[in-house]
Amino acid sequence: MSQHPIELLIQKADKAINQEDFDTLINIYADDAILVIKPNVNATGKAQIKEAFGKIADYFEHTLDVKQAEMKILETGDTALVLAKTIVSAKNYPTVERRATYVFKRDTNGGWLCAIDNSYGHDLLESDKQSA
Amino acid sequence: MSQHPIELLIQKADKAINQEDFDTLINIYADDAILVIKPNVNATGKAQIKEAFGKIADYFEHTLDVKQAEMKILETGDTALVLAKTIVSAKNYPTVERRATYVFKRDTNGGWLCAIDNSYGHDLLESDKQSA
Repeated sequence: MSQHPIELLIQKADKAINQEDFDTLINIYADDAILVIKPNVNATGKAQIKEAFGKIADYFEHTLDVKQAEMKILETGDTALVLAKTIVSAKNYPTVERRATYVFKRDTNGGWLCAIDNSYGHDLLESDKQSA
Repeated sequence: MSQHPIELLIQKADKAINQEDFDTLINIYADDAILVIKPNVNATGKAQIKEAFGKIADYFEHTLDVKQAEMKILETGDTALVLAKTIVSAKNYPTVERRATYVFKRDTNGGWLCAIDNSYGHDLLESDKQSA
């Protein structure tokens, strides 16, 4: 079975994150995309997202490895929801599995761009409770 | 704090589901919306979604009660991702808590419509594994 174009984009994004190729990475995002950096802290727009990935790379001492273990795509018209199991590992850090949620939308050329990148999924709700 | 317009729409949808007011309910969905009826079974478009809610009401013997216990909205431009804890209860059925994911998009009048209604969240990935 051929891969969904969004699956290929996410593979490209993961490779770009792991290689710290932020110029390639940022082209996968819409101009007004939101990245959840950590619960209750978001980056909005390409400049902030690029800066955030630079800081994340520094934080993990340039050993970050991100990959998707499983993925399901619900697509309709110009909108798609991706549900993924994302494996985040790095040297000297415990490997974490996240239940990520991504929203993609079609650009005017019919290609897909990431509009909302929330690798924390429903953990955002838990963090609300802890800080309340 | 005033409520997000999407939160009000979801409240309206829950009330319409519980009252079996499917004409009101269907107006909250985009023309090409997807509803996940159960893992690997989707309804697409207003006619199929309306039919599905009728069958769901029958299945639960007209005692279905749906409400959102918690909600987080990530919004950018014309796209929004909702992460919710959804409580589904009915007479003679155990109450279930689902980690729901909804995608809304703006219509041409600036209002919001539900494009993807997946109350099962990441359970879709688990069901893939079981049927593999």
